[in-house]
Amino acid sequence: MSSSKITTRRIKRLLVGQSGGPTAAINASLCGILKTCAKHTIYPVGMRFGIEGLITNKLIDLCAISKNPIQLQLLEQTPSSWLGSCRYKLPDPAKDTTVYEKIFLRLQEYHIDAVLYIGGNDSMDTISKLSAYGTSIGSPIRFIGVPKTIDNDLTHIDHTPGYPSAAKFVATMVKELQRDADVYCLKSVTFIEIMGRETGWLCAASALAPADLIVIPERPIALNDLFKQIQTLLKTQNTVIVAISEGARDTTGRMFCECASIHDEQTLDSFGHLAAMSGASRVLAASAKARIGCKTRAIELSTTQRAAAHITSLTDIEEAHMVGAYAVQAALAAETGKMSTFKRTSTDTSSYQLEYQLVDAHLVANEVKQLPAEWISEDGFHMKQEFIDYLKPLILGEAPQNFEAGLPVFLAPPKVDCIQNPKNA
Amino acid sequence: MSSSKITTRRIKRLLVGQSGGPTAAINASLCGILKTCAKHTIYPVGMRFGIEGLITNKLIDLCAISKNPIQLQLLEQTPSSWLGSCRYKLPDPAKDTTVYEKIFLRLQEYHIDAVLYIGGNDSMDTISKLSAYGTSIGSPIRFIGVPKTIDNDLTHIDHTPGYPSAAKFVATMVKELQRDADVYCLKSVTFIEIMGRETGWLCAASALAPADLIVIPERPIALNDLFKQIQTLLKTQNTVIVAISEGARDTTGRMFCECASIHDEQTLDSFGHLAAMSGASRVLAASAKARIGCKTRAIELSTTQRAAAHITSLTDIEEAHMVGAYAVQAALAAETGKMSTFKRTSTDTSSYQLEYQLVDAHLVANEVKQLPAEWISEDGFHMKQEFIDYLKPLILGEAPQNFEAGLPVFLAPPKVDCIQNPKNA
Repeated sequence: MSSSKITTRRIKRLLVGQSGGPTAAINASLCGILKTCAKHTIYPVGMRFGIEGLITNKLIDLCAISKNPIQLQLLEQTPSSWLGSCRYKLPDPAKDTTVYEKIFLRLQEYHIDAVLYIGGNDSMDTISKLSAYGTSIGSPIRFIGVPKTIDNDLTHIDHTPGYPSAAKFVATMVKELQRDADVYCLKSVTFIEIMGRETGWLCAASALAPADLIVIPERPIALNDLFKQIQTLLKTQNTVIVAISEGARDTTGRMFCECASIHDEQTLDSFGHLAAMSGASRVLAASAKARIGCKTRAIELSTTQRAAAHITSLTDIEEAHMVGAYAVQAALAAETGKMSTFKRTSTDTSSYQLEYQLVDAHLVANEVKQLPAEWISEDGFHMKQEFIDYLKPLILGEAPQNFEAGLPVFLAPPKVDCIQNPKNA
Repeated sequence: MSSSKITTRRIKRLLVGQSGGPTAAINASLCGILKTCAKHTIYPVGMRFGIEGLITNKLIDLCAISKNPIQLQLLEQTPSSWLGSCRYKLPDPAKDTTVYEKIFLRLQEYHIDAVLYIGGNDSMDTISKLSAYGTSIGSPIRFIGVPKTIDNDLTHIDHTPGYPSAAKFVATMVKELQRDADVYCLKSVTFIEIMGRETGWLCAASALAPADLIVIPERPIALNDLFKQIQTLLKTQNTVIVAISEGARDTTGRMFCECASIHDEQTLDSFGHLAAMSGASRVLAASAKARIGCKTRAIELSTTQRAAAHITSLTDIEEAHMVGAYAVQAALAAETGKMSTFKRTSTDTSSYQLEYQLVDAHLVANEVKQLPAEWISEDGFHMKQEFIDYLKPLILGEAPQNFEAGLPVFLAPPKVDCIQNPKNA
């Protein structure tokens, strides 16, 4: 580990938060952090609802959990962000330092030595800004980011924890839905809508099922071309499965979901993104029915993709755990303003291995990694072998899941009680 | 086994078909049938696409599979109807016997001694009609129905094979989606749409998660009452989960899905049912957003509910297998016009046990079993303990599922080749 080190001071208390959209592996990272804290006698404190919980004084004591193997195991198998999440964007510190002053005062009150934030590119923006502000005021507090997102769109990392489990769920569901769709002796087209606003990483995972055609934001399409592809396939098979990213668009740049008539939420979130954008599959199913004349169906996998703890990639859960543990090590090594990351050390699928590293969080902040153009087929509707080789090792293994009375068991949500007197926590 | 017996003749060839909507357990019944055939040296033949495949001469040889334990195991873990399905309604034989003559000629050509049909109440109509016609012409061929449907709406059976696995998946997903929905520190309502046109059995399974409110076709609701319930819950919790049947309706009898603007298929199927009727959750999410003003989300579980082979109830798979095997025994005992069924012999949840029986198929044909009114709470939005006690034993155990390279493995679909020369099959 190198550069951006700050004055060494033993870490007694570490504050951890989760931010952005949940994944099925984000709690495995929290678990890795808590276990490493216990190992190094660090007292872990959690923010409820991310950085918003820090500002509004919703902190909880995680010491007992960090030492309880049964609770840690349950935590690792629990979907969504156990600590809660937020979508809070810090202002430009050059323009307004009010909230920064508040945050650093709070961190001082709670005797926090290191802050770990598990999130996506927006969260790395938060880590980068807090670290820079801390350095500017001579604070010894370290800020380390821990990557997560089902979108797999972070730069400077081979793949993002959370993505492999979502990819495994998507490929499994598409494989199952393909069987379901093919049951009748009639021509039909099924459009399966998969999460991904700007990138098609998750939708592309349907190539493992395999889906017949894939429509991703990286490759805007003409509906005519899609319908031609479908009609060609229907000559030799009953059922065509089209996997479509929620952010898929036509060659004019218009997103298909913009044509859907009922949106539950069509507003911008605090980062300026469209808050919800489902409907692409319904729009295409209606168009295809009118144009091709056969039975069509639209299926939105919606948030099941990131919530399905009952089927996760063991590889992903282990890596998510490790990347969390590595972030604590980075804080112990007096790093700040970094994100824990990994690179693949072998391109050979059979000898898949990762090397854990650090990268400057500001390099990841607000950046988006799209699917490489060279991994997409010429016609734009298929993934090349390079992508398959990249994805295959990531979904290997099934993480254990406890069942009780026929249902998966999760760790009970945190109690609402917050730490009232930080000194006695 | 009693009554409706026909002249005894050794069964040499048995024809089996699957009909109606697929389930994750329907192939376990097929598996039970094939294993029992092998045990009794019966030659099994399969109809592709149900009775339609019989009429159009799409029959396949199942002898090799019936003796192959590895293929049988894969078949049991494969979702959807492996033989294919149809929604074909036989005409009233009093009005038109053309198709009956064709079917019985075909059965004679193929030397079929018994026909087993795995399906729902429409399929029992088929079994009932074929058996009655056969008896009227003095045919020795036996016709036995094997129950299946995720809807759990068959009469004269404790519960329908396929329902427990769908119920387990629904309860699991609702439990996971509840965690996902509750991640932000803001008020939100999530509407999860669950299959069920006329009955709320599957939607009611969300009570195990538990969903906060349940809206089922058996209890038409006033939107005002629903919104009041939601607003009361939002006073003490951030997130409200509403499970809603696709066929849910208001007190005027109008289905909420009828208000949805984009339908992929709004036509009647051959049994006179609305062929597709999704959209209820979107309609309610939009209304609730306008009325309550908080974030809302609509999630349709769609066909994932019946296709999710990766998480099935071991109890269900074993029962589906048994009920198929029992149907072969019934045919061997020279029964006809019956459906194999079971009743619960103990009302005590801890000592759950079934007794396998036969029932006249015409009693089940076209009938629908709704949720008993006494299992629904007074306000109509919750399930009483009686329902929970009924459902709990059904979802117990997780059926094994083979994974290869990180994805579940299914039996390859049947080859298109049909038996050309039945005598040499």
